[in-house]
Amino acid sequence: MNYYNSPARQEWEKIALRPTILRAEMADTIKMVFEAVKSEGDEALKRFTLAFDNAHLDTFQVDTAAINAATTLVNPALKDAILAAKRNIEKFHNSQRITKTKIETTPGVLCWQESRPIEKVGLYIPGGTAPLFSTVLMLGIPAKLAGCEEIILCTPPNQKGEINPAILYTASLVGIDKIFRLGGAQAIAAMTFGTESIPKVYKILGPGNQYVTAAKELASRLGTAIDMPAGPSELMVIADETADPAFVAADLLSQAEHGTDSQVICLANSTELLKKIEAEVQIQIQKLPRKSIAEGALENSKFICFENAKDTIDFCNLYAPEHLIIAVADMDFYVQNLNNAGSVFLGNYAPESAGDYASGTNHTLPTNGFAKSYSGVSLDSFVKKITFQEISKQGICNIGPIVEKMAFAEQLQAHKNAVTIRLEALAKESREESQEQRIER
Amino acid sequence: MNYYNSPARQEWEKIALRPTILRAEMADTIKMVFEAVKSEGDEALKRFTLAFDNAHLDTFQVDTAAINAATTLVNPALKDAILAAKRNIEKFHNSQRITKTKIETTPGVLCWQESRPIEKVGLYIPGGTAPLFSTVLMLGIPAKLAGCEEIILCTPPNQKGEINPAILYTASLVGIDKIFRLGGAQAIAAMTFGTESIPKVYKILGPGNQYVTAAKELASRLGTAIDMPAGPSELMVIADETADPAFVAADLLSQAEHGTDSQVICLANSTELLKKIEAEVQIQIQKLPRKSIAEGALENSKFICFENAKDTIDFCNLYAPEHLIIAVADMDFYVQNLNNAGSVFLGNYAPESAGDYASGTNHTLPTNGFAKSYSGVSLDSFVKKITFQEISKQGICNIGPIVEKMAFAEQLQAHKNAVTIRLEALAKESREESQEQRIER
Repeated sequence: MNYYNSPARQEWEKIALRPTILRAEMADTIKMVFEAVKSEGDEALKRFTLAFDNAHLDTFQVDTAAINAATTLVNPALKDAILAAKRNIEKFHNSQRITKTKIETTPGVLCWQESRPIEKVGLYIPGGTAPLFSTVLMLGIPAKLAGCEEIILCTPPNQKGEINPAILYTASLVGIDKIFRLGGAQAIAAMTFGTESIPKVYKILGPGNQYVTAAKELASRLGTAIDMPAGPSELMVIADETADPAFVAADLLSQAEHGTDSQVICLANSTELLKKIEAEVQIQIQKLPRKSIAEGALENSKFICFENAKDTIDFCNLYAPEHLIIAVADMDFYVQNLNNAGSVFLGNYAPESAGDYASGTNHTLPTNGFAKSYSGVSLDSFVKKITFQEISKQGICNIGPIVEKMAFAEQLQAHKNAVTIRLEALAKESREESQEQRIER
Repeated sequence: MNYYNSPARQEWEKIALRPTILRAEMADTIKMVFEAVKSEGDEALKRFTLAFDNAHLDTFQVDTAAINAATTLVNPALKDAILAAKRNIEKFHNSQRITKTKIETTPGVLCWQESRPIEKVGLYIPGGTAPLFSTVLMLGIPAKLAGCEEIILCTPPNQKGEINPAILYTASLVGIDKIFRLGGAQAIAAMTFGTESIPKVYKILGPGNQYVTAAKELASRLGTAIDMPAGPSELMVIADETADPAFVAADLLSQAEHGTDSQVICLANSTELLKKIEAEVQIQIQKLPRKSIAEGALENSKFICFENAKDTIDFCNLYAPEHLIIAVADMDFYVQNLNNAGSVFLGNYAPESAGDYASGTNHTLPTNGFAKSYSGVSLDSFVKKITFQEISKQGICNIGPIVEKMAFAEQLQAHKNAVTIRLEALAKESREESQEQRIER
């Protein structure tokens, strides 16, 4: 741990700094993978899967038999837990729908927004030691709620070419049946260009290691949208004397076990409290299976004492944490003054892991300070909002002259004409009508 | 014009293709500009402004006197028009606020979203022949409504180092007072890094030429968010016999006058109608001040006849136009089946120019097919949505066991512990309580 006691404001920027990720060295590999996948398609995917994942594959798509078998391989208690988490995540994401409200900005001018699903989306689920089936829920559920037509899932196989049953079960539970045994930069390239086996998608979402992250960045430059830039996971806890040091320590460790590059920050209003939390960390860490990873992360962790709530929230906003636990007496002050964070956990009984799995909020969140400008994944991530305007004859008569003046001042005569020609036609129509009326009389 | 009559589906992809923009050749210039601005700050900005805009500047910020003077230089009728447009744009963007709804996903587990403004945003307004004060409204109004704390505006000066009064007036009207005489890649670099004069921002929004677009792309790789990738402006009109050929022609020309690379597409259900529209185009184009630009754009325009509505909307969805005018009898069919478009104009009296200026919708929209995955600028572009969860003792007892099972299955023991330690504390608390009750009895 690194301790800071009421650091001066001019030091804050430096304390809040994340480790720099050097992507330049990966750029050549990623570029090579993309070029090969673009020109050779599935052949290149097979080659890279053998080279990077040590798996020899003839086909990429997981067949129905394997998906069905997964259901019997996952233990019933876990299945119930996944089902319960699914219900909460669905409930919360379903509440994020926009309601279509037609606004009459001027008499005869109706404007509104409508959400439409992104038709083709690709979900990336990382491989590695643990099967991250929770991320299948976090991406698959909003994609389904949004109504995306084609949802595909790529995840790296093990050396036998298999996918963990919990991932298959969860994907199938949320209604995703196009599951591909494909990981790394080659998966991102395949979804960007499309190959014989893998469909091209319009947006790629999901976490991954730094190769996957760099590959997603390249995909976005090639015209495929991505969810957000990514970096190592982060947790900030703001605690005062009403917090339980053992709870805070457990929360910090839950972040620290992710990886040695995990960011763990604890802000408190006294050094005594920080010391108590550290003591609890030292006790709890002993029993962790991922102890050495957690120790690595804690080496770079920051324990900062701030004398007042204003400094605390200002530093929090400067850091812009991915996850923020607020365990203090006066929560309202922090909620009201919070500007930058991905997901916030309030009170002593809201550990980050509740949101990681089952409270209902999404766990795909902006890291690396991107919470200053990005939101986490939500229903919005899977839709576009199209604006509509319906303008009546009365409407164009009302706003037409405004448009004419502005277009003329911007020296866009044809923009003006598009209005003028309509206003003239309506003037003629009205002249003819009044003439007819005169004749009738 | 290029005519197509019921083209086969396998041809569609090719017809819908946009011209490729080669950004590679610009990459070196942009990189050089960014490096110089990062290391030399204002000095580099002065050098580039002299080199690229032929303007010699000592300071960049427009002073209050110049802003005040602008008010007297803009003619009163135009000021009234701008004010009326502002009211409509405000009304529509104000309706885009999300309402905070707390969802109890499980008893004791409350989840909700709150919007928070992006604190520092930079608006880019292109220079060139016409003063695009309308874009100041389209970016400035939602930024203000969102509550962004620091809003800066960069726009290139003329050779005398001046900004068009209409831009200054409009900026001041929407409440932006930090206006900088700075354009091109150097403006984007300055907002990305910050210099002595120009503040660093978290997000850059606004249109620009291909240098500005390439610079924004680099900015996004360096951690500054951008609104969306950009390409030449586009209009698709879907017309049937109920459309007025003269109106459609005027709309196509309003798009064509933007630039020779503008995309102009007309879909109709008969070649006769297409011919009538073309005849009207040939008449109306003669009087345009930007005739040669419009002619250039029309050379690449596409007039396509589709026999049925299904083919028409399918092609429209494949193309994903920035602007879409639907001037047909059965509008509902198209609205219901539309998936991909930026902004839609319904009926014979809804020209694109109405939305460009004054109907209330935004005119900063996804081009180049990005309407498949991106929305246009809206209030959302200036906020992040933070998720919150408040979990009571009852709440953690309800979802805790679910989290424990899932974390264990993902081999994240510390994630499980963060819940277990709370459940154990609560179990102890409840044992003690019942003991106390027994003693009391």
